Amino acid sequence: MAQKAVSCPVELTLGVISGRWKVMIIHQLLEGTKRFNQLQRELSGITHRTLAKQLRELEANGLILRQDYREIPPRVEYSLSPLGLTLRNILASMHEWAETHGHKIQGPPGAGPGNA
Amino acid sequence: MAQKAVSCPVELTLGVISGRWKVMIIHQLLEGTKRFNQLQRELSGITHRTLAKQLRELEANGLILRQDYREIPPRVEYSLSPLGLTLRNILASMHEWAETHGHKIQGPPGAGPGNA
Repeated sequence: MAQKAVSCPVELTLGVISGRWKVMIIHQLLEGTKRFNQLQRELSGITHRTLAKQLRELEANGLILRQDYREIPPRVEYSLSPLGLTLRNILASMHEWAETHGHKIQGPPGAGPGNA
Repeated sequence: MAQKAVSCPVELTLGVISGRWKVMIIHQLLEGTKRFNQLQRELSGITHRTLAKQLRELEANGLILRQDYREIPPRVEYSLSPLGLTLRNILASMHEWAETHGHKIQGPPGAGPGNA
């Protein structure tokens, strides 16, 4: 992706965090390392399949780390990589913006969260 | 949208700016008021139809203002509303993150920009 021509750096950032679930996963992992089942429970509404796909993409982009303990029953833990942790400020800005201005948003959410 | 239950405020912010084009349109309008044709030229690659749709959604959410001078040929100008202008810091954070960390992103862009 670093090689992909983008017309603006902002697009690159949006590319790696776009979609409701990716941002929510990063948000959850900012609290610390979590297991797959724990993430699925906390992201109520996400399917096993979707969570697995989003985690794979975030791992492929180098934003999260996956630790498989190779135990039975399986124990797999996810955490933010050092690169993933650098997204903290952006998420904090988005959180703050919504708290301050969210009630002023009018109409339907347009494209809205959920696309990814 | 303010009434829609969201599990986290970050989702709300993502809802109004998600998608490659919305962020790019806001980015363009941070430079000042622009006409439709000017926006289309600067967002090279966007179709008339897509630009019109994205502008309508941003206007419906109260983020941009549309001024139709009712002239022939048509003159329609777009600018950020006071609410839209408050997104400046988030876009600046995303810009800065990409400049600092963008080269570390690995692999394909996952969901990537463009969904909206």
